[in-house]
Amino acid sequence: MNIEIICTGDEVLTGKITNTNFSYMAQKLEDVGLSVRWGTTVGDDRETLLAAFRQAGERADAVIVNGGLGPTVDDLSQEIAAQAAGVELVLHEEWLAKMQDFFSKRSRTMPPNNVKQAMLPATAEMLDNPIGTACGFAVDIGKARFFFTPGVPRELRRMLEEQVVPRILARSGAPTAIHLKRFHSYGLGESHVDQLLTGLEALDPTGGVKLGFRAHYPQLETKLTVRGTDMDDVHRKLAPVTAEVRKRLGNFIIAEDDQTLEGVILKALSAQDGTLSVVETFTAGQIAARIAHMPGAETVFRHGTVTRQLDHLFGVTVPPHLDQDTTEAVVRAAREQTGATHALAVLIELDDGADRIDFGGTIWIGIATAGRSEFRRSRILGGREWVRLGAVELGMDCLRRFLQGLPVVERIDFEKT
Amino acid sequence: MNIEIICTGDEVLTGKITNTNFSYMAQKLEDVGLSVRWGTTVGDDRETLLAAFRQAGERADAVIVNGGLGPTVDDLSQEIAAQAAGVELVLHEEWLAKMQDFFSKRSRTMPPNNVKQAMLPATAEMLDNPIGTACGFAVDIGKARFFFTPGVPRELRRMLEEQVVPRILARSGAPTAIHLKRFHSYGLGESHVDQLLTGLEALDPTGGVKLGFRAHYPQLETKLTVRGTDMDDVHRKLAPVTAEVRKRLGNFIIAEDDQTLEGVILKALSAQDGTLSVVETFTAGQIAARIAHMPGAETVFRHGTVTRQLDHLFGVTVPPHLDQDTTEAVVRAAREQTGATHALAVLIELDDGADRIDFGGTIWIGIATAGRSEFRRSRILGGREWVRLGAVELGMDCLRRFLQGLPVVERIDFEKT
Repeated sequence: MNIEIICTGDEVLTGKITNTNFSYMAQKLEDVGLSVRWGTTVGDDRETLLAAFRQAGERADAVIVNGGLGPTVDDLSQEIAAQAAGVELVLHEEWLAKMQDFFSKRSRTMPPNNVKQAMLPATAEMLDNPIGTACGFAVDIGKARFFFTPGVPRELRRMLEEQVVPRILARSGAPTAIHLKRFHSYGLGESHVDQLLTGLEALDPTGGVKLGFRAHYPQLETKLTVRGTDMDDVHRKLAPVTAEVRKRLGNFIIAEDDQTLEGVILKALSAQDGTLSVVETFTAGQIAARIAHMPGAETVFRHGTVTRQLDHLFGVTVPPHLDQDTTEAVVRAAREQTGATHALAVLIELDDGADRIDFGGTIWIGIATAGRSEFRRSRILGGREWVRLGAVELGMDCLRRFLQGLPVVERIDFEKT
Repeated sequence: MNIEIICTGDEVLTGKITNTNFSYMAQKLEDVGLSVRWGTTVGDDRETLLAAFRQAGERADAVIVNGGLGPTVDDLSQEIAAQAAGVELVLHEEWLAKMQDFFSKRSRTMPPNNVKQAMLPATAEMLDNPIGTACGFAVDIGKARFFFTPGVPRELRRMLEEQVVPRILARSGAPTAIHLKRFHSYGLGESHVDQLLTGLEALDPTGGVKLGFRAHYPQLETKLTVRGTDMDDVHRKLAPVTAEVRKRLGNFIIAEDDQTLEGVILKALSAQDGTLSVVETFTAGQIAARIAHMPGAETVFRHGTVTRQLDHLFGVTVPPHLDQDTTEAVVRAAREQTGATHALAVLIELDDGADRIDFGGTIWIGIATAGRSEFRRSRILGGREWVRLGAVELGMDCLRRFLQGLPVVERIDFEKT
């Protein structure tokens, strides 16, 4: 199936905003086993919009158009869609009533220019937008089915999932049941995970399981797209594959599906009525910033300290170079003085000199509870920002491992030893 | 001048990576007064690449192609460029020698597949890449001049600025001297600033000044593109316009050109041998994370505290609802107990209930030195993340104003009063 995406709007074309809608749509299609073949970006201009619609209508089977459904004069998608389809624009009474209801529920009068949003090509099928006034629609242009979607990301996301993807899947003749299973890991590079998972797809002899990755350093997302005749069939296929991924990636899996590393940490602490204090140096509050604002953190996150002078407040004498004893003394003192059940210290000695690609830092990590303390030393290269990102993730992952009863010290691909 | 951009690569087409190169290129062209008319995204596929090159060659004057210059088999740009131009691929001896030198300087032997990177269309003009092995080149396809650039962002950025933009400008017949002046402001919305700057372009009667904006909440970038016959002419045109922007936006300008808000704060503190301590609640370390990691911060940033329980460590009794006296007591105690010359406290009372679009927070900001303290109260709506972003920026901006001797309390567009 030949799928194209057309993104419209001067703000996208001039680079004023980065086009995250494109990558979002392409990924959502990949997740259900469909691929985009061609992407086009054009501005709010009648001539180029018409050329883009006609061109895609000649060569594609399905086209998703994003943007241009707003109430202002530079929103042209409905008008040009009607022109390209060779039909009139007509008032869609159902959508007009929905919009009037939308405004009256918010105690506002609908401005007259919003009526434009209810003008659709005569042959269009309406695609519902439950959270906005931009009306989606589907229409045939050339040999392709076009799906028009709003530019506002949260409206696009909902319409894509509920209205557009199911229609494209139905046209593609793909099996009705599809599920995406995701694993988030930390510490193994993409090619390493790829190698560890060799032969995984073959565990389902029907070929219903597809493996993919999405790297956002320092985390890696492993994605399993599973297709079946129905959801029972999907879960039957998924069970042995999921078990195998958990076995092969083991301790390196930090979260699954919509979970996050910080969410897993917060949940584990809550479960044991724990509280947390964090001491940071060069990571400068980034660990606290990941955890302390979350709903529920107000009773768990006890204290965060950011300092570039380690002997301050916790009364520990710090030698010119850090060592294990000092790190453990700092984390124990922090825990005692802030009254938390758990403390995490991530202390960093940066290399000297200017930032450069092989600039590095030595990371000293300590974790303490009343009865126990753990220590890990690591070295990360790659420039100041890379060291900082790496240290945040490594420190949080050590805490996750500690809370889950896993070894805190286990070699990762991103460290230099 | 009709300019198109073609982005190539499966990683971009499948949405595995977000295409920030496109917006970067489009912005760089806008900054020198040029506009992109059409954007195309295609994968590593011979047939679609050829179709994309031919199509752009028929309708554009200049085309920038990004990606596909690497050493692996799926890097196809040179091969398809030669095919579209109707010429042979030939070995470019000069680039081969540069690559061999590149590897030998790093004490490595060049792998044989890198030779592919020195194969260019016979009619190509080489575009230098001083920091990588991907060789840029320019070649005519159809009626357009094509510029082939590497996908690695830092290589692209350098080649675009040094090689591609000057060549496109020369072809466009635009004046030789162009300068981009940027102002970063906080507290005024884009339409408000647009209105405040009404008539600004007319200050230069030759029409050589173009005004533009780029919003990245909570900051706004105001851009002046100035064209002239030479740099003296540009600076002559720029001086009165720059003075007028400073006058009209006044206290709301937080930084200019490559400066940042955190950089301005750090510099102002350094200049008075100051040190800083920060107390945060729901902003959860984001203020510390902006300042404390910067080069030079190791002697200025004294201490950061993140807590959701305010009475801890600083010994201030906090009533059920915050007030001015408590905020000032906390910031004074923090300054004294951490031994800094300056302290900033950004304390937040969040609304109750689930996150929603009108979810808000009340922000209590205190600043203290040994002899003086300042206070500001604000209210921001827009959901948890919006409140957090807004509070970080407002707190930092109050400190900037304090350090620069400006009023700390001045109404901003983003607060509800």
